[in-house]
Amino acid sequence: MTCMNHHYTDVKESYLFADIRKRIDTWLKKNPGGKVLRLGIGDVTQPLMPSVIQALHEAVEDQTHAETFHGYMPECGDPGLRQAIAKWYQQRDIPVEWEEVFISSGASDELGDILHLFDRSLAAMIPEPAYPAYADANIMDGRKIIYPEIDADHGFMPVPPAEDIQALIYLCSPDNPTGAACTRQCLEQWIEYAGRTGSVILFDAAYESFVQEKNIPRSIYEIEGAKGCAIEISSLSKTAGFTGTRCGYTVIPLSLEREGLSLNKMWVRNRTTKTNGISYILQKGALAVFSEQGQREAAELREVYRRNARNFMQALDEAGLSYTGGKNSPYIWMKCPDDHGSWETFDILLEKGQIVATPGAGFGESGEGWIRFSMFADEEDIREAGRRIIFLRNEKYF
Amino acid sequence: MTCMNHHYTDVKESYLFADIRKRIDTWLKKNPGGKVLRLGIGDVTQPLMPSVIQALHEAVEDQTHAETFHGYMPECGDPGLRQAIAKWYQQRDIPVEWEEVFISSGASDELGDILHLFDRSLAAMIPEPAYPAYADANIMDGRKIIYPEIDADHGFMPVPPAEDIQALIYLCSPDNPTGAACTRQCLEQWIEYAGRTGSVILFDAAYESFVQEKNIPRSIYEIEGAKGCAIEISSLSKTAGFTGTRCGYTVIPLSLEREGLSLNKMWVRNRTTKTNGISYILQKGALAVFSEQGQREAAELREVYRRNARNFMQALDEAGLSYTGGKNSPYIWMKCPDDHGSWETFDILLEKGQIVATPGAGFGESGEGWIRFSMFADEEDIREAGRRIIFLRNEKYF
Repeated sequence: MTCMNHHYTDVKESYLFADIRKRIDTWLKKNPGGKVLRLGIGDVTQPLMPSVIQALHEAVEDQTHAETFHGYMPECGDPGLRQAIAKWYQQRDIPVEWEEVFISSGASDELGDILHLFDRSLAAMIPEPAYPAYADANIMDGRKIIYPEIDADHGFMPVPPAEDIQALIYLCSPDNPTGAACTRQCLEQWIEYAGRTGSVILFDAAYESFVQEKNIPRSIYEIEGAKGCAIEISSLSKTAGFTGTRCGYTVIPLSLEREGLSLNKMWVRNRTTKTNGISYILQKGALAVFSEQGQREAAELREVYRRNARNFMQALDEAGLSYTGGKNSPYIWMKCPDDHGSWETFDILLEKGQIVATPGAGFGESGEGWIRFSMFADEEDIREAGRRIIFLRNEKYF
Repeated sequence: MTCMNHHYTDVKESYLFADIRKRIDTWLKKNPGGKVLRLGIGDVTQPLMPSVIQALHEAVEDQTHAETFHGYMPECGDPGLRQAIAKWYQQRDIPVEWEEVFISSGASDELGDILHLFDRSLAAMIPEPAYPAYADANIMDGRKIIYPEIDADHGFMPVPPAEDIQALIYLCSPDNPTGAACTRQCLEQWIEYAGRTGSVILFDAAYESFVQEKNIPRSIYEIEGAKGCAIEISSLSKTAGFTGTRCGYTVIPLSLEREGLSLNKMWVRNRTTKTNGISYILQKGALAVFSEQGQREAAELREVYRRNARNFMQALDEAGLSYTGGKNSPYIWMKCPDDHGSWETFDILLEKGQIVATPGAGFGESGEGWIRFSMFADEEDIREAGRRIIFLRNEKYF
């Protein structure tokens, strides 16, 4: 008999961010007092917005008095917040009912937990380059992983494989790290494929609020048939700066069934057994995001990052560099010039320009030769990084 | 090939609290304007304490300014909070290092998640009556469950089985629902058994702060050998009224190994893959609990519930009823008089006394013939319930 889950030993240790830190530290040691421009990590830098702050303070105040005090919250989320999110979908003609919305601690937590619904013999299909936790969480379950082809020449749009395989399909749009946003046609292909093969799509919509182009779906449920095959996992982390505050939401359609089982009912069972709900305080803060004022303020908040993206894309254009993303995404995914590798480019940027980016190779083999810049950085840092990249190109450092 | 985790269909639907609600509703319909005394659910009623409220407000304020804003938190918990909890153990000569402490959303969330470390062929050993989620979470993993005998005549103390079985052993002390608190000798037996069989103990310490008697351990690590076989899962829910605020902690010893694997390292891997940490705001609130002022205030907070227990035990004594718990626990577990069943007693209490309790049968077969009262209720309700029980006994309603 086996006591432990030995699949943990199958996960490769990730040294990506540790490696980045080490190289920065080495540079700082050689250049005491030096300053680096941090465009590496995808973490927000703007403070929470006024309506959220007010709601959080009020919720804390509620917990001060016995009359307004809240104990255990409903395991699937506060009905008021679930309804507000459903309404927010419905206002854009996206058919989501409140019983289909579950409140979570955030997208990454939910992406880990939701795997419990699926048998471990079901393969995971992960278009790479991808957020490394997709594969790691499945490896820890002992699942087989299939990596379908990605068309790098056409903006890293994921394409269903020729072979019919039943799988748990990961789609992230707008994508981390490539910044590619799935077109309607792309999603239609995947929904058709999932329907045909009995697959389930996990649609990671954490960056949906960065979509600018009208023809790019912000929710997979904008496409017909999605409610029969897709779960949408989203978060307020990037939408409203909640990375350190933590709250997200997941949509599991009532009509989504496989092998006679309702995935929505299974998730209700999972949540009622395995959690005691999300903090009253955080859910109050999240509710404020879906108010009229909250939506306006959240758009202003994101405008800072969008301006960053416009400024940085302008600099890359001026330097004659190729990239994807930036338009519908807070990430810019740059082709390393002169056939440099990801890490080689990382070193040049750090040593010659004091710019920190994330090597594409860290997101899977197919990311080699690319590098990711995060637009969540400080505004002045982004402008300065843009100027330096133009200078480095002019001086032929790369 | 199977797509879904069909073990979900093996879980029995729990109608316990739904049944209770239905019976209350029926009574209220027959008695419009009537009032019931709610001693059923184990949810706190006292507001958060001043030091926590202040810390929460300050943390919200930190999120208002770019200079003090916090994004992603470390996945295993804020080092400052982990250190404060380790120090709080060390001050009582309990050897816990800060790297052994993980911050969680609460004990129930953690009890669900931590099962991922173990192979699904490992059996779970659950002394019943027990919190129903212990068994349900394991059934959903497809684990075999063993129910060792409980000695009801000696205060529901769990006893290791005669046969040597490697298992994941659940111990809850002070216990929900029986209120029984494991003695040193009881824990020594289990640690010896776990060591001999290669088992791992999940020690649910959510009610540890209610221990009053000096010879009853508040942590399993007060017993020698525990660090080689036990994980301690605890929470601020009952300690400091965090049921709706959510924050807890888990201790996984650095020396705990099975089959060549370090459980601490595995959990670090799990957390870094599957979460993005606990809210900055909540961790700040939790930190305040471990300050000197926080500890004083938390003790005052619990004194309300302890006074409830003393008052209620006095009433049961006066009524000549038998019970366990109450002394080191916020739960009082009463033997149903006159060989009544759990639900029969429930109905008498509701209809004749308007008192709501939780039938012991809801915690497993061995709970039949017992009923649980929660001392987290309103002070005046507890006093009134006590008076009514004395009256019901005097009038021979049971």
